[in-house]
Amino acid sequence: MESVLPLVGVLFFVFLLARGLGEVTQRLGLPALIGEIVAGVAIANVAIGSFHLESWLSLDPTTAGGVVNRDALGALADVGVVFLVFAVGLEIRPDELRRFGRISAATAAGGIVIPFGLGAGFLLLLEGPTGWPAALFVGVSLVVTSLIVTARLLREARWLDTTEAHVILGAAVIEDIVGVILLTFALGVTAGSEHGPIDLVYQVLLVSAFAVVFVLFFLFLAPRLVRRYLDPSGPKKVSVRLRTRNATFVLVLLLCLGASALAASFQLASIVGAFFAGMALAEFRDQYDLRAAFESLNTFFVPFFFVVIGLAVSTGDLLAAWPLAAALTVLAVGGKFATVAYDAGALGRRPALRVAAGMVPRGEVGIIVALTAFGAGLISADLYTAIVVMAIATSVIGPYLLHRLFAGGVAPTTEAPVSPAPEGR
Amino acid sequence: MESVLPLVGVLFFVFLLARGLGEVTQRLGLPALIGEIVAGVAIANVAIGSFHLESWLSLDPTTAGGVVNRDALGALADVGVVFLVFAVGLEIRPDELRRFGRISAATAAGGIVIPFGLGAGFLLLLEGPTGWPAALFVGVSLVVTSLIVTARLLREARWLDTTEAHVILGAAVIEDIVGVILLTFALGVTAGSEHGPIDLVYQVLLVSAFAVVFVLFFLFLAPRLVRRYLDPSGPKKVSVRLRTRNATFVLVLLLCLGASALAASFQLASIVGAFFAGMALAEFRDQYDLRAAFESLNTFFVPFFFVVIGLAVSTGDLLAAWPLAAALTVLAVGGKFATVAYDAGALGRRPALRVAAGMVPRGEVGIIVALTAFGAGLISADLYTAIVVMAIATSVIGPYLLHRLFAGGVAPTTEAPVSPAPEGR
Repeated sequence: MESVLPLVGVLFFVFLLARGLGEVTQRLGLPALIGEIVAGVAIANVAIGSFHLESWLSLDPTTAGGVVNRDALGALADVGVVFLVFAVGLEIRPDELRRFGRISAATAAGGIVIPFGLGAGFLLLLEGPTGWPAALFVGVSLVVTSLIVTARLLREARWLDTTEAHVILGAAVIEDIVGVILLTFALGVTAGSEHGPIDLVYQVLLVSAFAVVFVLFFLFLAPRLVRRYLDPSGPKKVSVRLRTRNATFVLVLLLCLGASALAASFQLASIVGAFFAGMALAEFRDQYDLRAAFESLNTFFVPFFFVVIGLAVSTGDLLAAWPLAAALTVLAVGGKFATVAYDAGALGRRPALRVAAGMVPRGEVGIIVALTAFGAGLISADLYTAIVVMAIATSVIGPYLLHRLFAGGVAPTTEAPVSPAPEGR
Repeated sequence: MESVLPLVGVLFFVFLLARGLGEVTQRLGLPALIGEIVAGVAIANVAIGSFHLESWLSLDPTTAGGVVNRDALGALADVGVVFLVFAVGLEIRPDELRRFGRISAATAAGGIVIPFGLGAGFLLLLEGPTGWPAALFVGVSLVVTSLIVTARLLREARWLDTTEAHVILGAAVIEDIVGVILLTFALGVTAGSEHGPIDLVYQVLLVSAFAVVFVLFFLFLAPRLVRRYLDPSGPKKVSVRLRTRNATFVLVLLLCLGASALAASFQLASIVGAFFAGMALAEFRDQYDLRAAFESLNTFFVPFFFVVIGLAVSTGDLLAAWPLAAALTVLAVGGKFATVAYDAGALGRRPALRVAAGMVPRGEVGIIVALTAFGAGLISADLYTAIVVMAIATSVIGPYLLHRLFAGGVAPTTEAPVSPAPEGR
């Protein structure tokens, strides 16, 4: 059946379905992103008699119109994830990172080493030594913590000013930075391995060097440049001298897109660039009203990202992948609780359990890792589906456990509340 | 040459080029949209030796990657024009329309009948009676006034509180509404004509009926529904009862996309729906901060729309079409000044000339008409190029004449200033 809906009609129905199911999952106490992913799965798989939702929405990839509409959705998803990750970076001020202190770092260290080892080891056990590229990505997907799911949960439950919340958010930020760097290495290593061991070493060195320069530039030099050239009260005031309307926001968009493009052109994921660009601008987020501006953009864009994630999941893969998904979920939850052995001494037993529960959700970051690896052809459809299911399952289990563990009373601190969640989904 | 840039890189360079040339044209005293269109023309046509800008940007339509990237740009352009036109509608409060009064209406009447007659007559003269569908669109493209170019010009020159500005903006709004309705009819009539005279009558009746219902719904019923269901202090408060974050803006986006999709599915242009949806929400624009939200969206989206316009212009067509473009420009300028004969009595000779000059720019509205007709295969590439050039030329000539005519002093009024320009380009 040829495409009959105009593009704006396709976008309307997809947006309506994603927002509608997102509202439903929120009413069930789950993050909106789960409903949006389910919308994508539904579009790809719902068929009743001769009615196929995909064809009705003019998204059938076997028709010319369907291909154009899918390219359009893909473009909105690509832009959406860049803006989403930029907005997450915007919440992380490099100077705030220090405040979270030693406990966060120790928790993060445990939360990185143990889940990575569990995930990569499990995959190697399952697929043998030739499965090492997939093992790398599974390991990385178990390391990361969903800053968005966790921060939103803590804010909504009014636990943001507890010691546990500080430790959770600090550790989550460190884990995400390390996770993004690990993702960078995994991509570089697997790209290099295609051309033999010499190229592999060369590729790893190149990516390492680039990653180090990139991170240092965005953490230390970029904020200074922003202060010097973007700040209306700064010495150079580029944004003031431009005639372009909304010039500061235009420059910020260019920085965001440019950093993403730069990262992508060096075989890194575009989101790595967006994340560090966001961090570089974090201290100016209020001065330039960047949160509100990106909130408007993300309100439109982000559902398309999660729908596209769901579109790539077939119910056939789901049936085939569920044992793998269940195993990964067990490892994901177990891996974070295993870190309790680490820092229970510093925090006490119950707070340490709360911290572990708070770091269970893998959410959007785990899914981004899966999508990046799947898009590069480095993991199978089964494994992609299993990681997505694991990321969703942990985003349900983590909040549930946290509510149970907080039921026994909290330990408030007197420190200022940490960054609230961006685009809170 | 196969695509090498990732999509985010394509978007970065296109956005950079468009914004950069937009800044240049603004420094020359011209609207930014002209620089953005030139960016598109440059991408499609710049070739130095073996270097083709289009291939370098991975936008060569003969490669698979180029097609995907072009689909992506097309999608951003489609969404961009819907949001742009919505934002224009947002500036037009139905109740403010009345304030502009009799002179605006008289000016608009002249500014509709005379340019339409000149444009359609000229095309019929040129192409004979079989050219009537193209004649309709050329007529419509000469009727419309660029609310964005004109309002921005008046605001920047601080003439917004003059009688002339009130008359110009009032007439421009009326002309755009009539222009959009005429566009609706032209599309309906030409679509119907493919199936013989009976279908033609049926199609015209259907489109007329739909257009009337649509316009009445959005002007009278929709604001009431918005007040009832969206207003947090209203009796139903849907947006308050939703868990979805930023729920009001989500509902506004759904209304905007839904109205566009509805209009498109009835053979109208999607922008007709977006325009009236914007008008329906105009009285709530401040309460819900809709201007700032759409400003953020449009800062990102709109340059892609103007770039895509330029992409469809080849320098070959430009060379072939320039006599036609020059003729249309003369008719466009002459048509508006011919209306001076009409209302010079009410305003006085010099103010009437100023009003005429203020209504010369066809800008984005003229281009949207051309793109809609070209996209539906109803006008030739030459004629498309000629209308685009006319729209650009009038957007340069109008401001120039207005500055000359205002040099002799202004007649300030005591009325409140009228709506400022959206996304001011």
